[in-house]
Amino acid sequence: MHYREVRTKREFVARMETGADWREELETLAEEAEIDAGFFYALGAVQDAEIHFYDQREKAYDAVTFEEPLEVAACMGNISWLDAERFAHTHAVLSRPSGQAIAGHLDSGTVFAGECYMREFEDDLVREPDMTTGLDLWL
Amino acid sequence: MHYREVRTKREFVARMETGADWREELETLAEEAEIDAGFFYALGAVQDAEIHFYDQREKAYDAVTFEEPLEVAACMGNISWLDAERFAHTHAVLSRPSGQAIAGHLDSGTVFAGECYMREFEDDLVREPDMTTGLDLWL
Amino acid sequence: MHYREVRTKREFVARMETGADWREELETLAEEAEIDAGFFYALGAVQDAEIHFYDQREKAYDAVTFEEPLEVAACMGNISWLDAERFAHTHAVLSRPSGQAIAGHLDSGTVFAGECYMREFEDDLVREPDMTTGLDLWL
Repeated sequence: MHYREVRTKREFVARMETGADWREELETLAEEAEIDAGFFYALGAVQDAEIHFYDQREKAYDAVTFEEPLEVAACMGNISWLDAERFAHTHAVLSRPSGQAIAGHLDSGTVFAGECYMREFEDDLVREPDMTTGLDLWL
Repeated sequence: MHYREVRTKREFVARMETGADWREELETLAEEAEIDAGFFYALGAVQDAEIHFYDQREKAYDAVTFEEPLEVAACMGNISWLDAERFAHTHAVLSRPSGQAIAGHLDSGTVFAGECYMREFEDDLVREPDMTTGLDLWL
Repeated sequence: MHYREVRTKREFVARMETGADWREELETLAEEAEIDAGFFYALGAVQDAEIHFYDQREKAYDAVTFEEPLEVAACMGNISWLDAERFAHTHAVLSRPSGQAIAGHLDSGTVFAGECYMREFEDDLVREPDMTTGLDLWL
């Protein structure tokens, strides 16, 4: 376990714009408010979604696309710097009318409605390539 | 992205009462502690649940009822004012003995056990009808 | 609803070690940083997982094992004292390459990668046996 004590600088609540991209909205908040590191939580609904699954053996992401309205039952993730840009690492649990749940790494999704809480840390988080997993990790 | 900086006023941990309603317990906490705005996170188990899915085209909620014990694997949401009452907008991911996940907007559910963390913001959040989505949204 | 106001003492971000156990990593953070009570949120991926479902009638946990790589789409829980040890009560939503979601009480899982945010409260939380549910509950 690699850990670091952090201090919260600012906190935000946000409402996402209908028709915008879910992950881009989170990155827009980070950019506009100049948040270099933080954790966020969100809920709402999307009009479609692209979920990624990381193939741990092949070290590559596989995409699955859902062209249907879905509830965003739970969404959490964090803001950090990746390749000189603010990146919202976003995981989500989505659901269909039957209640059936779909989950994973949320690459994109068209916002129907979304509510978010984000807290910003004083120190920034920077992602760098990790040899073991093939992922970009911080700390 | 519509956003607002907020400041945390108080924080609470809570244990839900067995046999009570999951969402009403969250609203009871908000009412008793006079929380006008906040975000919450909870986990536990319910004896049954009613999940809602918002039909984005018809602009109406459809209900699905589960008359069976379910784990509450993840629950998040927020407290705001709606129609002159404190409302807990509650999303949840539930699960069956096989691990099968069910998710969505949680309207109600009979608590078996529940643990909650809620943080209160200084400024209140008020929901008002949004023409585009047909939902009651804040900000 | 049994509730208590709490104050946050410290906050941490952490990266889990590949190959370690997911829940043990959370408990390691609590032990090393001497956290007696807190709430945490995490996301990442595991190489396998053991999910528990609490049988509300039999008052016992049933286990389901998944011997496959899974995304950790959402994980939340809390740190408290149980039987003189720091215990990470951990719930998680996992997912398969198709996006299919699996959820429940996460007993264990081999970390592939994991990112965590944990906040520590000033007062400790202690779990004690609850007659009604057969669970160990705090407050």
